[in-house]
Amino acid sequence: MSELSITRLNSSQDDFKEQLEKILAWESVSDVKVNHIVDEILAEVKLNGDAAVVNYTNRFDLTSVTTMAELELTKERLAQALDTLPEDQRSALEQAAQRIRQYHEKQKSDSWQYTEADGTMLGQKVTPLDRVGLYVPGGKAAYPSSVLMNAIPAHVAGVKEIIMVVPTPHGELNQLVLAAASLAGVDRVFTIGGAQAVAALAYGTETVPKVDKIVGPGNIFVATAKRAVFGVVGIDMIAGPSEILVICDGKTDPDWVAMDLFSQAEHDEDAQSILVTPDADFIDKVETSIRRLLPTMERKEIIEVSLRNRAALILVKDMEQAIEISNSIAPEHLELSVENPEELLPLVRHAGAIFMGRHTAEALGDYCAGPNHVLPTSGTARFSSPLGVYDFQKRSSLIMFSADGASKTGKIASVLARGEGLTAHARSAEYRIKD
Amino acid sequence: MSELSITRLNSSQDDFKEQLEKILAWESVSDVKVNHIVDEILAEVKLNGDAAVVNYTNRFDLTSVTTMAELELTKERLAQALDTLPEDQRSALEQAAQRIRQYHEKQKSDSWQYTEADGTMLGQKVTPLDRVGLYVPGGKAAYPSSVLMNAIPAHVAGVKEIIMVVPTPHGELNQLVLAAASLAGVDRVFTIGGAQAVAALAYGTETVPKVDKIVGPGNIFVATAKRAVFGVVGIDMIAGPSEILVICDGKTDPDWVAMDLFSQAEHDEDAQSILVTPDADFIDKVETSIRRLLPTMERKEIIEVSLRNRAALILVKDMEQAIEISNSIAPEHLELSVENPEELLPLVRHAGAIFMGRHTAEALGDYCAGPNHVLPTSGTARFSSPLGVYDFQKRSSLIMFSADGASKTGKIASVLARGEGLTAHARSAEYRIKD
Repeated sequence: MSELSITRLNSSQDDFKEQLEKILAWESVSDVKVNHIVDEILAEVKLNGDAAVVNYTNRFDLTSVTTMAELELTKERLAQALDTLPEDQRSALEQAAQRIRQYHEKQKSDSWQYTEADGTMLGQKVTPLDRVGLYVPGGKAAYPSSVLMNAIPAHVAGVKEIIMVVPTPHGELNQLVLAAASLAGVDRVFTIGGAQAVAALAYGTETVPKVDKIVGPGNIFVATAKRAVFGVVGIDMIAGPSEILVICDGKTDPDWVAMDLFSQAEHDEDAQSILVTPDADFIDKVETSIRRLLPTMERKEIIEVSLRNRAALILVKDMEQAIEISNSIAPEHLELSVENPEELLPLVRHAGAIFMGRHTAEALGDYCAGPNHVLPTSGTARFSSPLGVYDFQKRSSLIMFSADGASKTGKIASVLARGEGLTAHARSAEYRIKD
Repeated sequence: MSELSITRLNSSQDDFKEQLEKILAWESVSDVKVNHIVDEILAEVKLNGDAAVVNYTNRFDLTSVTTMAELELTKERLAQALDTLPEDQRSALEQAAQRIRQYHEKQKSDSWQYTEADGTMLGQKVTPLDRVGLYVPGGKAAYPSSVLMNAIPAHVAGVKEIIMVVPTPHGELNQLVLAAASLAGVDRVFTIGGAQAVAALAYGTETVPKVDKIVGPGNIFVATAKRAVFGVVGIDMIAGPSEILVICDGKTDPDWVAMDLFSQAEHDEDAQSILVTPDADFIDKVETSIRRLLPTMERKEIIEVSLRNRAALILVKDMEQAIEISNSIAPEHLELSVENPEELLPLVRHAGAIFMGRHTAEALGDYCAGPNHVLPTSGTARFSSPLGVYDFQKRSSLIMFSADGASKTGKIASVLARGEGLTAHARSAEYRIKD
């Protein structure tokens, strides 16, 4: 452990920009072999429905079922999982669900309309998606918090039916995941996974209803399948590895900061933890904490690889420069571990979620702060947002012209349509001109 | 022309569903050869910047420039295009821009936050994208209305810099397009197009600044390039052919309805026009109008192919069934050409834009009603929305725990993190627990 070396950068070094870019570089590899396998599975499920899903599930999840019905869990089964949880887990899950619901309620959009002087009405009608599919990974990566974070916004949006899929290799069920599904308002659960589950949701089978959008994390086969069915259904973002950027004034307990960096690094070996501070001594202190605490961590092997390959401790001139660097990175998670985070906030332009103040550990946001933990990664916070209720609502424009309005506006449309050489457009508008 | 036959369907026929699906079927072909060419262009521009863009532009647009600077138009040049337009065109463009701006102002989202009893603050910070690229097709398909519809929402959102690209084959400039760019608040214009323009915007070159999102329509090379750079930058939807579904009670002038169907069909041969009505006689009347009017249309060849291959005249039981069928199609444009469209509106679940009442020709929405004309096609209105200000804003979650809040919530996070086996998360939260 003693040889662990973490990249140190100084914003005043000549090659700072290049060195930073090297640390940030991450490309999702699109694997030809995976694409091929996924395409085959998608085509097979599209063609043969339930039978294909049953076959793939038996093959990949080592089950031995004969009908799709055996792969569905009833609502009672979910409720039972919740009822039989140890009291502390049940209570924590319920409190988390409540806080997440409360926050997401504020994200709901409403329809609006306005009427112009001539009686013309314009507006926007907001409606929920009819049916949504939620992918939940099986095995070790089955996170009940992900179920809450994906299903609750859909439920708050008013989605009528939420269908969850979760693979259960060897038939192994995760009670916490089922309990979370019960709490979050999931309507049906199928114990299927992989590209075959994505295909079943996108195309529908005799038993699995076709959904309008598929959300939730998954492995490379799931991500590839989601990309492939995009357009047939909506999908959420394809996430890259998780990242945290901690900006600290040097006055937070270095153990706290070290553990915050670990909490990112323990996700997986590609996860990225960056500390930015104007205090050179603090970098030494945090590194000392890291060396002392690392051997005590359950997931120390993962943390060590992640820190060695992808972490950086960056010394900057001042806090303004720290924020500037953060804006250029557009991190998924940004911690402002400083005395007055509100002073810095106006300078922050791009970040998935902003954790303000020394007490706001990023881990709180992962579980129960309220905001979503599905966040834009790999710099995509420059142009995208956390998963939210808005991802489960869509808008329709409303246009209702009065006879007067159509006459007046028809004249404008006519000129513009003729300017574009679209004369059917022009004549359609001209029919509604009175004089 | 007399042999033009348009598909007729009756909702009571046994194979109605299959016949309707046959008419709706449309698959975007992904062309291996196009993919290959686009990949090469993207790689070349990424590597060689301006030089590559200049080369491709000379080759594809038959220009003969030596520097990128020759491919930029000044703001003065745009203003000049606006100043020298014929008065009726200038006035129409200005009125359209004003109506579009007015409508889109209502779509702006604001940041919000709330404070809990223990002093914990939660919220959402809404910020505009920094820089957006707008693709405008050249030649015949150069539509000034598209410039307004794409640039104005970005401008209203507060995007600091809007970069437009428009190819000018043989150096030919479209004055209306440049005038629209001036009106819509476009900051810089480069006369480049194709995959090389998309690459320049996505990666940046010495002269073309890297943008955060690329919007706007284009040919197969442009669409393929946009798909390929998705993730590096944001993109809008990849649109399929345009569609209209007219629901009529049989009491609108059949010429009006015929022309509304034409206005869709004239876009291109794959465009789709559908009439749904409970009035069998009205179908005959509209078909008579179609036969009479078609020979008078400038774009009759395109309209005829579109109507023959993709149109349908559908007889239904009643208006409720008409809406049901429309919901299953989720059309891009829905016209409710009826006496009281407001009565039907609550039943409409999926449509890009809803045109209400006999006077509301779809063509008005294409130019100057106010709402956007960039709409979800091919049934994607089930899960997506018109282009809007929200496409040029993004959100960051805000979380600021008080010491008390962090202590209380940390206990919940700790239980859940340990349940997921993520102990660095747990310990990071536990550091902030007081007792």
